[in-house]
Amino acid sequence: MKLEQRYEGKAKRVYATENPREYVVEYKDDATAFNGVKRAQIRGKGEINNAITAHLFPLLEGAGVPTHFIERLSEREQRVRAVEIIPVEVIVRNVAAGSFSKRLGVEEGTELRRPVVEYCYKSDALGDPLINTDTAVALGWASEEDLTRIRELALRVRDFLTPYFAARGIRLIDFKLEFGKTQGGRVVLADEISPDTCRFWDAETNEKLDKDRFRRDLGGVEDAYAEMLRRVTQPT
Amino acid sequence: MKLEQRYEGKAKRVYATENPREYVVEYKDDATAFNGVKRAQIRGKGEINNAITAHLFPLLEGAGVPTHFIERLSEREQRVRAVEIIPVEVIVRNVAAGSFSKRLGVEEGTELRRPVVEYCYKSDALGDPLINTDTAVALGWASEEDLTRIRELALRVRDFLTPYFAARGIRLIDFKLEFGKTQGGRVVLADEISPDTCRFWDAETNEKLDKDRFRRDLGGVEDAYAEMLRRVTQPT
Repeated sequence: MKLEQRYEGKAKRVYATENPREYVVEYKDDATAFNGVKRAQIRGKGEINNAITAHLFPLLEGAGVPTHFIERLSEREQRVRAVEIIPVEVIVRNVAAGSFSKRLGVEEGTELRRPVVEYCYKSDALGDPLINTDTAVALGWASEEDLTRIRELALRVRDFLTPYFAARGIRLIDFKLEFGKTQGGRVVLADEISPDTCRFWDAETNEKLDKDRFRRDLGGVEDAYAEMLRRVTQPT
Repeated sequence: MKLEQRYEGKAKRVYATENPREYVVEYKDDATAFNGVKRAQIRGKGEINNAITAHLFPLLEGAGVPTHFIERLSEREQRVRAVEIIPVEVIVRNVAAGSFSKRLGVEEGTELRRPVVEYCYKSDALGDPLINTDTAVALGWASEEDLTRIRELALRVRDFLTPYFAARGIRLIDFKLEFGKTQGGRVVLADEISPDTCRFWDAETNEKLDKDRFRRDLGGVEDAYAEMLRRVTQPT
């Protein structure tokens, strides 16, 4: 089914298939942080992130967010619509943490009065610099129309996921999304939603259940990922 | 006329007056760059920036941009409306240069397809970090309504100044604005417009006629400031 590799990212490989409108995504155990400076393997991560994404994307479709996801194929693989990734990463924040806290001198854990949507230019060479929508349009990375749609969808994802995780004892602190364009020109959610791309804190203890355990050498990385898969798929 | 000093910035001092609705601003020759790391005096700068700002602000009022400016009092002083500065600096870019070029890997001098409005949090301690309007609202630095007005006024400033300078043989590359709120709650343009806060390139030679001559040790700093005063006040 998989034909030639189209793209290899830090955590996934994307393959062409016999159907030019579809790709296969393969999730790796590789983890990187600080723009690739820190590298390791997190055992089981590929399977877990594949499973979490495969669980959440259909729910998001149901909540009015079109996605690239078609179906989970195997423990590490999923079938997706072939999209061209828009090189603008979207970060949605409910609570101050990470680079936002550091850059702005706001203590980690500070609730934001309203969700903050940030945009970064997807470029390893430049370290994914913060941009705004004017810049993305001025430099030809996305159209004004696409960015308006992306913001709307990103907030819809937030409005669905925040209570979804709350019901499972998880505070959704922030998350990163990527969008793509189908061959028909439709903007759809792409990439993944997982402990690699979200900050998840236990609602009772504020224990981190995400990639910050790896970034900050907190230990228990594999257990945190496994716990998140358990919570995400847990009936309420 | 001047009573106690209210504020001392890198390039200006602000004094209370007998009228609680008015301040006196005194322009200094002090120049700083790279968030205060590089410091010097630029002879005549205070007088020139006072004169350029005093020339441009009434023209901007005429173009529909309310400002804090009332009148020039002396070579270094001007009388202004007492405003509370909104801690969100606004940068408007016509052409890629400076930090924008460096951050995004875009060659200095690249024309932007559309003007880019950027926002920074005015904080010396944090190095004036780039933010967006969501962040400013979420952290209580400005209201959504004020930010909408600020963007509108910033673009109005750009639409007036770009052809104004072009008619005087100057490319307006980018500029930084600050806005304040009057005691009545009105958003007005404050601070200054000068070679300290704008990038001005000679339209024929692309010679820099602004603070980059100081930042980058290009020499001829005083001459460039004097030349800009001459061009700004030159009839066309």
